[in-house]
Amino acid sequence: MILHQYIRTSASLFSPPNSCLAAAVLSQLFSGLFSLVFAAKMATAGKVIKCKAAVAWGPKQPLVIEEVEVAPPQANEVRIKIVATSLCRSDMYYLSESEEDTFPVILGHEAAGIVESVGPGVTEIQPGDKVIPVFLSQCKECRFCKSPKTNQCDKTWPLIRLPGMALPDSRITCKGKKVQQLAGTSTFSEYTVVRQMAVAKIDPTAPLDKVCLISCGVSTGYGAAVNTAKVEPGSTCAVFGLGAIGLAAVMGCKAAGAKRIIAVDINPEKFEKAKVFGATEFVNPNDHNKPISQVLVEMTDGGVDYSLECIGNVEIMCSALESCVKGWGVSVIIGWTNLRDISTRPIQLIAGRKWTGSLFGGFKSRDGVPEMVKAYLDKKLKLDEFITHNMTLDQVNDAIELMKQGKCIRTVLSVSPQ
Amino acid sequence: MILHQYIRTSASLFSPPNSCLAAAVLSQLFSGLFSLVFAAKMATAGKVIKCKAAVAWGPKQPLVIEEVEVAPPQANEVRIKIVATSLCRSDMYYLSESEEDTFPVILGHEAAGIVESVGPGVTEIQPGDKVIPVFLSQCKECRFCKSPKTNQCDKTWPLIRLPGMALPDSRITCKGKKVQQLAGTSTFSEYTVVRQMAVAKIDPTAPLDKVCLISCGVSTGYGAAVNTAKVEPGSTCAVFGLGAIGLAAVMGCKAAGAKRIIAVDINPEKFEKAKVFGATEFVNPNDHNKPISQVLVEMTDGGVDYSLECIGNVEIMCSALESCVKGWGVSVIIGWTNLRDISTRPIQLIAGRKWTGSLFGGFKSRDGVPEMVKAYLDKKLKLDEFITHNMTLDQVNDAIELMKQGKCIRTVLSVSPQ
Repeated sequence: MILHQYIRTSASLFSPPNSCLAAAVLSQLFSGLFSLVFAAKMATAGKVIKCKAAVAWGPKQPLVIEEVEVAPPQANEVRIKIVATSLCRSDMYYLSESEEDTFPVILGHEAAGIVESVGPGVTEIQPGDKVIPVFLSQCKECRFCKSPKTNQCDKTWPLIRLPGMALPDSRITCKGKKVQQLAGTSTFSEYTVVRQMAVAKIDPTAPLDKVCLISCGVSTGYGAAVNTAKVEPGSTCAVFGLGAIGLAAVMGCKAAGAKRIIAVDINPEKFEKAKVFGATEFVNPNDHNKPISQVLVEMTDGGVDYSLECIGNVEIMCSALESCVKGWGVSVIIGWTNLRDISTRPIQLIAGRKWTGSLFGGFKSRDGVPEMVKAYLDKKLKLDEFITHNMTLDQVNDAIELMKQGKCIRTVLSVSPQ
Repeated sequence: MILHQYIRTSASLFSPPNSCLAAAVLSQLFSGLFSLVFAAKMATAGKVIKCKAAVAWGPKQPLVIEEVEVAPPQANEVRIKIVATSLCRSDMYYLSESEEDTFPVILGHEAAGIVESVGPGVTEIQPGDKVIPVFLSQCKECRFCKSPKTNQCDKTWPLIRLPGMALPDSRITCKGKKVQQLAGTSTFSEYTVVRQMAVAKIDPTAPLDKVCLISCGVSTGYGAAVNTAKVEPGSTCAVFGLGAIGLAAVMGCKAAGAKRIIAVDINPEKFEKAKVFGATEFVNPNDHNKPISQVLVEMTDGGVDYSLECIGNVEIMCSALESCVKGWGVSVIIGWTNLRDISTRPIQLIAGRKWTGSLFGGFKSRDGVPEMVKAYLDKKLKLDEFITHNMTLDQVNDAIELMKQGKCIRTVLSVSPQ
């Protein structure tokens, strides 16, 4: 479909009077080319695809670019050619914190691509569709999917033990070994197989190397402010941690009409970026010799209306709660960690604060992702501003290093040509 | 006003044809008597009142019935003749957990009485009014009182350190020593002085030895279900702890239309009572050799929609949260304790549960108490069923013992004749 649009655009460059004929010729020519390309794509359908992927062979080890074999999709599954993938901190979390027996694995869960083929029973998606795979499924059948109160889907869990929604029998092998799938996605690969219920079909004009960010970080932060905290106009918010999720949360607070958005980070280099997304004030905890919650309570005459933890640090989660005003303060946990407990004194809650959290920003994945893509195309959502580096899949270890050092917001890896 | 009603009722016993005359004579007679009584009451206005009170001289010691001196109310204060007071577990908490320097103190915060006199600036309350003093103030001026989101009042705090809203300069002395005031109320005394902003004027026909329960426990439990958890019709609830607050929470869940109300207590003798208030199922954690949260999750195919902790035990607070269903489960902390932390794994909240709490069931005290009294008079709220024992103030230590042994729900102490 896009190729046809391109043909018409090219044709329009011809000046009259011969443009109609020329256009017709060109159209035929490109149309034939399109069929050829499509046929080439289709030629892989039903067959094992040998392609490149970054494989994690063990905890804390550098990834290795390997040739892998990706089996055809089975019932209700979709095989996707990944065009672009970005790195998210959860990938690093998995790499550093998982048990030996969950390797080898292909990381990556923030990506966009084009459907190569579909398995039996797939009705909503066709080869050639532009799609975003999401770690959170939306089966549209379970009681959670049917409730407007939540985006949790019964088919996603138990996500509590990553790799979560892994296919029971992974479709990828490497050197004869089954490779596990991260959260049902594994996008650090030229091809991957994902369940239909976790694939969102998006606008065919969307640039995949930008909208891949919607697959996790941006939706997670933005939605946590808009959907989970339900930030109200005129309110005061605090966002802890100014990575991609935190910046997206700042953007969400601004979109919801917050009056004061206090950005908190120990790296003051991030404040300039936070300003771009709507932060109005900036606090570096290292500049103060008292708890950050106390600093915020004093800045706001009693505490913020909403606080959003975007790091994945249990101490900060508690500080974020304690930064909230009594009576109605809402604190949302967005950052991912599950190794240690969060804790606080009961009075924090008895005084009327609410402590909650969300996954994927409260968006039902297949419904929410296309809306977020549309918001970007309509220039109502920033994405480009998150991307600080562009690399290729081969450079994934360099990208990991950048993230570890806090030197990037998002690095987008080009995986396959579009 | 009540006296006049009584006159009319008595008069109606006379048979015609002389009833009108007789009624007129009686009415005059009683009216004169009423004026005399009122004048006698007023005779104490502006003077120190010597009366009886139960004084706590130190932590964990039995209370001592002493003669105390209650000074007249100062600006914006109300002196109340306490007619009935009941014991609440928070009184015990204070007695056993407070520091030496917070004694002597007069406990008691769940009571009803009649206004004896008022200080300058008191406009909404008059001598002779039936009232309920509440530990939670409603100043109607602070930003919390003005917000519909909360019942927290800026003038109440810091309640975090009981005795909280104590008058800065207590109005009660005993043997020449200032006696501290529990949470601004101190109702284990024939007279007490309370700020106008913490006194709710109630229907003059209300029986004070019943509606005293609205002053804390019943409102706290009932409101936590209705106002804080906002229990929805058809939902599944679990109530942990079947003391007065827990039973009131059960009653609140039922009033809100819950379909399943699971009552949890290690004392199975309480189940029969819980049934009276609307509980549909009963669980004794001691009957199971797995965590109670797991028992409830299995009973409800994933967890309850609402859980209410009515004990004041940090472990149970965590169990209550973990008994909730992912996605939309709401857990409310109602029981009072603040000595240790509550803690849980972040995934519990990231999975969409909400953890919150409330004080006084989310009711704005001066607005909510008269409504609760009306609900009782309209037979929409049970109170009599909570009262297992009636005693006098002199027997306060016996009442404490009953509560310690879990042998009562509520003991109402008669303090002064009505």
